[in-house]
Amino acid sequence: MAFLLSLAVLLVPLASAAFPDCANGPLRNNTVCNVSASPLDRAAALIKLFTLEEKLNNTGSSSPGVPRLGLPAYEWWQEALHGVASSPGVDFSTSGNYSYATSFPQPILMGAAFDDQLITDVATVVSTEARAFNNAGRAGLDFWTPNINPFRDPRWGRGQETPGEDPFHLSSYVHALIDGLQGGYDPKYKRIVATCKHLAGYDMETWNGNFRYQWDAPITAQDLSEYYLPSFQSCARDSNVGAFMCSYNAVNGVPTCADPYLLQDVLREHWGWTNEEQWVVSDCDAVQNIFLPHEWAPTREQAVADALNAGTDINCGTYYQDHLPAAFEQGLFNESTLDMSLIRQYSSLVRLGYFDPPEQQPYRQLSFEDVNTPEAQQLAYKAAAEGIVLLKNDNLLPLKLVNSTSIALIGDWANATDQMQGNYYGQPPYLHSPLYAAQQLGITVNYAQGPGGQGDPTTDHWLPVWDAAAKSDIIIYAGGIDNSVESEGMDRVSIAWTGAQLDVIGQLAGYGKPMAVLQMGGGQIDSSSIANNANISALLWGGYPGQSGGTALFDVLTGKVAPAGRLPTTQYPAHYIHDVPMTDMTLRPGPTSPGRTYKWYNGTPIFEFGTGLHYTNFSTSISSPPNPTYDIQSLVSGCAAPNAAKYLDQCPFAGASPLNVEVENTGAVASDYVAMLFLIGSFGPAPHPKKSLVAYERLFSIAPSANASARLQLTLGSLARADEMGNKVLYPGDYALMVDVQPLAMVNFTLTGETAIVDEWPQPRNDRVTEKK
Amino acid sequence: MAFLLSLAVLLVPLASAAFPDCANGPLRNNTVCNVSASPLDRAAALIKLFTLEEKLNNTGSSSPGVPRLGLPAYEWWQEALHGVASSPGVDFSTSGNYSYATSFPQPILMGAAFDDQLITDVATVVSTEARAFNNAGRAGLDFWTPNINPFRDPRWGRGQETPGEDPFHLSSYVHALIDGLQGGYDPKYKRIVATCKHLAGYDMETWNGNFRYQWDAPITAQDLSEYYLPSFQSCARDSNVGAFMCSYNAVNGVPTCADPYLLQDVLREHWGWTNEEQWVVSDCDAVQNIFLPHEWAPTREQAVADALNAGTDINCGTYYQDHLPAAFEQGLFNESTLDMSLIRQYSSLVRLGYFDPPEQQPYRQLSFEDVNTPEAQQLAYKAAAEGIVLLKNDNLLPLKLVNSTSIALIGDWANATDQMQGNYYGQPPYLHSPLYAAQQLGITVNYAQGPGGQGDPTTDHWLPVWDAAAKSDIIIYAGGIDNSVESEGMDRVSIAWTGAQLDVIGQLAGYGKPMAVLQMGGGQIDSSSIANNANISALLWGGYPGQSGGTALFDVLTGKVAPAGRLPTTQYPAHYIHDVPMTDMTLRPGPTSPGRTYKWYNGTPIFEFGTGLHYTNFSTSISSPPNPTYDIQSLVSGCAAPNAAKYLDQCPFAGASPLNVEVENTGAVASDYVAMLFLIGSFGPAPHPKKSLVAYERLFSIAPSANASARLQLTLGSLARADEMGNKVLYPGDYALMVDVQPLAMVNFTLTGETAIVDEWPQPRNDRVTEKK
Repeated sequence: MAFLLSLAVLLVPLASAAFPDCANGPLRNNTVCNVSASPLDRAAALIKLFTLEEKLNNTGSSSPGVPRLGLPAYEWWQEALHGVASSPGVDFSTSGNYSYATSFPQPILMGAAFDDQLITDVATVVSTEARAFNNAGRAGLDFWTPNINPFRDPRWGRGQETPGEDPFHLSSYVHALIDGLQGGYDPKYKRIVATCKHLAGYDMETWNGNFRYQWDAPITAQDLSEYYLPSFQSCARDSNVGAFMCSYNAVNGVPTCADPYLLQDVLREHWGWTNEEQWVVSDCDAVQNIFLPHEWAPTREQAVADALNAGTDINCGTYYQDHLPAAFEQGLFNESTLDMSLIRQYSSLVRLGYFDPPEQQPYRQLSFEDVNTPEAQQLAYKAAAEGIVLLKNDNLLPLKLVNSTSIALIGDWANATDQMQGNYYGQPPYLHSPLYAAQQLGITVNYAQGPGGQGDPTTDHWLPVWDAAAKSDIIIYAGGIDNSVESEGMDRVSIAWTGAQLDVIGQLAGYGKPMAVLQMGGGQIDSSSIANNANISALLWGGYPGQSGGTALFDVLTGKVAPAGRLPTTQYPAHYIHDVPMTDMTLRPGPTSPGRTYKWYNGTPIFEFGTGLHYTNFSTSISSPPNPTYDIQSLVSGCAAPNAAKYLDQCPFAGASPLNVEVENTGAVASDYVAMLFLIGSFGPAPHPKKSLVAYERLFSIAPSANASARLQLTLGSLARADEMGNKVLYPGDYALMVDVQPLAMVNFTLTGETAIVDEWPQPRNDRVTEKK
Repeated sequence: MAFLLSLAVLLVPLASAAFPDCANGPLRNNTVCNVSASPLDRAAALIKLFTLEEKLNNTGSSSPGVPRLGLPAYEWWQEALHGVASSPGVDFSTSGNYSYATSFPQPILMGAAFDDQLITDVATVVSTEARAFNNAGRAGLDFWTPNINPFRDPRWGRGQETPGEDPFHLSSYVHALIDGLQGGYDPKYKRIVATCKHLAGYDMETWNGNFRYQWDAPITAQDLSEYYLPSFQSCARDSNVGAFMCSYNAVNGVPTCADPYLLQDVLREHWGWTNEEQWVVSDCDAVQNIFLPHEWAPTREQAVADALNAGTDINCGTYYQDHLPAAFEQGLFNESTLDMSLIRQYSSLVRLGYFDPPEQQPYRQLSFEDVNTPEAQQLAYKAAAEGIVLLKNDNLLPLKLVNSTSIALIGDWANATDQMQGNYYGQPPYLHSPLYAAQQLGITVNYAQGPGGQGDPTTDHWLPVWDAAAKSDIIIYAGGIDNSVESEGMDRVSIAWTGAQLDVIGQLAGYGKPMAVLQMGGGQIDSSSIANNANISALLWGGYPGQSGGTALFDVLTGKVAPAGRLPTTQYPAHYIHDVPMTDMTLRPGPTSPGRTYKWYNGTPIFEFGTGLHYTNFSTSISSPPNPTYDIQSLVSGCAAPNAAKYLDQCPFAGASPLNVEVENTGAVASDYVAMLFLIGSFGPAPHPKKSLVAYERLFSIAPSANASARLQLTLGSLARADEMGNKVLYPGDYALMVDVQPLAMVNFTLTGETAIVDEWPQPRNDRVTEKK
């Protein structure tokens, strides 16, 4: 995505306003206007009318259409990371209707909710509002969201856009998200087309002289299969997403937008993403990068031909229009390849109802009355409240406030507004800061901004901090990081709190008053000194909480909401970034790395993946334990017809019945609880992951002494590990399933028999991957 | 200096407006108002009146003064890097008088002029304008300029603020600069107080998890003595600068603001900076950093006491006021130490005439009529024109323009305005862009902005580029880098042109039209592909050229000015940043480094330090060659009384007479010429530097066939090298002197006898440097 987004917004013409006129326009008698024909036939009939020049002109993100055919211009570039967002194809009005849309929390905080239904609900609101904007001529029908690269390294500036570091979690999250964005997995009319990005291995902006436009990521087949690609497999194979975006970087020598192994062998063939009503767009302008700075293609013409031939259907930018004509002259691609890309684009629009009568389409009736409804506002609040993670609580929280209570609200995030949206945001209806929320409580709030979040070590702003602290009963510090240090184009250079913030927090703790710290921002920062400071009673992580972020934070602080979020990433010690270069893509520990993510990191994290305290206590038990032993060959053959799963790894483990986890609230406060199930065991080749998340479910509002039940479905894929070829393999050995991070319950079972492959990984094309042309 | 400068400007009260009333105020009978007493006695008498609390209150950069004594508040923080600049103590009005000041080029471009008189002239204008602002109550009297750290690594975001990479060049430059800023080296009234910063070893913002507030730079005594400190020695010992700033980083374990070795042993004792009318200020807020994140002092009180005891007189920020009281209670410093720091501050103000009748002081009569005069405007233009460096010219330049000529002016710098000022700037009277300048020529100018300078690879802005190129006779591309990638807090992650710019430049070259490229920005970028492209006829480097930058650039392009600037830094190949970590402070090549600067880099630079072509040709000869042989002991003893140099290294080499270099313009165009003299030879221990600049002089407007003479004075210091202890040593051996980068003349001589130390370097205090407390 473009770094200078605002510039692009100004310069790219809005081109999504019109629909083709199938009633009276020049196309009315073409098959494309025949609602009973197949989308593929309809698009093919349309493209057949194009001249070569018209075909070549419609290969970029801003399609001019074909005026002589009455085919309007169409802008393919819309964003909607956590709400309809400013982008070339989205046009917010300056006031009144369509001047705002609901702004949800950043995905990293929504991921922390571990609530797939929440994600579907949020995505449904987003697609509803997107359709309302589209009906008003203010947006197109496809959106370049979600960013589903795993959050591999805590420095990554765009990790905030993802749900976290765990591939199972991401796969489950994105499956729920696409349901809401597209309106199911195979609807007649898609709500909108979602775009899973960035395929693949893109998770570094700039590090030590490496930058995304040029970086060639070395990734083993094993790591690709088990870590970098499961979320994309979920998009393609399991969720039928309408579009993919290839990335800036190369993988194993080949820029992804020019890589037929990735775009054809893996994406389309192995994952069965062969419906032609879907397309691949390049990141902006990743096709240009294939020439420079990748220097992979020796000419501009070869670069565009390589991308088109590999299966990149749309180029974000103008490079295709500029250079495909000469490439065609040089015979570098066949016209049928170009036709196929255009058919993919327009059959996708057919599936969105673009050519169909509006009166037959419910989404075409949506209007601004459907934008930021009270329900949507409540959902934005709920999404923030569900994600907030309680990391420490020495009996301070929930706060006991009376009218005479005074609180000091201090720090760079205390009066956060725009900060709360992270990046890729639109115009929100409001931004309720922590300060705003505190001021609604009928108590005295003493606010001070200092010490400044990032970069600025000057003490000039500190005096009001001491004033606020001195005259207050309770001290709340809201700080951490924000998009001034983690953002697109900017990875972090430190995962520690700034010295200035730690100094101020330390001095505030010296007052000996009840004190809580809100750690904000997407990437984790080492909060060990806060966790270890006996004078600081509570620590929460709040991510980027969106339009109702301040209210959600204060509702958790005051106990109106009981926290139940879980860390979606590991909180590493500050020295971690000195232990492993960002360019080391391996997950397992090695000579230059202590390993990555909770599965492989061999040091002691400050807070583990999945950590999250409550205002109450829970006990759990597993009421439907698995058998003591399973034979692998029986498991596999049990998946055969007539009960066949389409893919073996999707076959339910141990028959069709999910594992029942019974949860009891043994404390005094009603609370949600996320049942997380981890798999451990020394099966298969060493090294072994410490544990692996295989299922989760959020349970709601469990009253004191009440019970609730999570039904956690495991599959053969849950038990499989990737071998060095990338194949997913069932290994004989001893397995255990644990409930929660600090295990509350555990069961064991054994697999016997021979190893079996449940998913055979496609191997790289040796002729393409070995070296640059 | 604070990263969030604009914020500081808003929040710090302006406190420089008032002078003490020595005629009728409470101090009128105090010695401080006695103009015939010594500055030291006057300041001591003032401080004697302070209570302890008043002393402690006046230790920060915003001094409240002492109202009961009629001593006004005083803001110490003014900036003037290349003109009076926005800063807490500088108050530009919004319109009319004092709404602007002259904006000169960034030092990196002024350094490229290699014209010391120019630097003095520019600095005189800056100090004149500063005094005018002071007289209007819009600025204080001390300014935190220059930044004189050597530009060690091309990635450094603040290298643009320095004159370049060579320590002799910096020393000579800063000597000329302080002359102009302070009004001579020991004037009765200083024009302003200059502040040499940042002492020492500060030349990295953030790199691979290291950042300036926490970085502990390992620097050998040899490198300190011969590379990192000569410019500071020039400030202290040879130019009597009024102030120093200690830096954020530590050197060899000790944060510089807490390092008595650096601030006492080296600065005050070894360099004889013992006049108490001068002071050391901390960078903002480097004293806080001593506690966190350096974690060098175990408590805040110890941090402030360590800084004060080490000789940091003023703390930028509030940390001294906040924590010195408790430190005093704990007995961590003596009141006499505090007194000394205050006496230094106020005796410095005495030397600025702060307590003296204004009618006796010429600088107190300056007004806005003295700001941005026609002469100052001309000087800002001249400074830009003199610095511009011609790197390639295949007979295209100077351009032959007629009224019917059309030029395409393309690129992110083509319409540069604010960009031209770099950083630390004020309000300029105007900013004449390249486009503005081109439009004054009476020709057709076809302007296009694309492709975007930095970060943005999108091709969306490219179409107007081709339009402009297609319809023009001549193509001029103005791009490179700017403060979006090199700035305070941000080191570069690439020293290559962006792929997008190289692509556009390459396509433009494909038009086969006459084409020139302007490489802009402070740090160098690898322009080899431009140099090697036969379709691109000319390449110039233009730095950040200030308010008349566009005019200067076009006057060089059209031949109104003949270029004579020289590269003040090495242009390394793009891969250099992968060859050496930024944290490697050594200059010499080693296992992890190919060496730094033209003296030690063992690879092949793209363009060498000192490179600069002309529109004519020059020949040179050395008309007063040295003797064939000198005896070291005779050289040293020849410096004894009665002809004693105060410092042996300053003693003229070979008697008092300078080397005469005769220069003849053998071409057809009148031109300036910079005579650069390099020393080479294998004397002293290996490894040996490739060469070393030992003298330079800019000669002006040498007509075709005319001659001019440069008189280049060498000293014993010119011949000395630093040994591993840091001592400057004369070694027996064979020496050669070369004129220019591609030598135009050369002479040889031999030193015989025993080695002799001409400057004995103070050794570190072992008790302090070994480890953290």
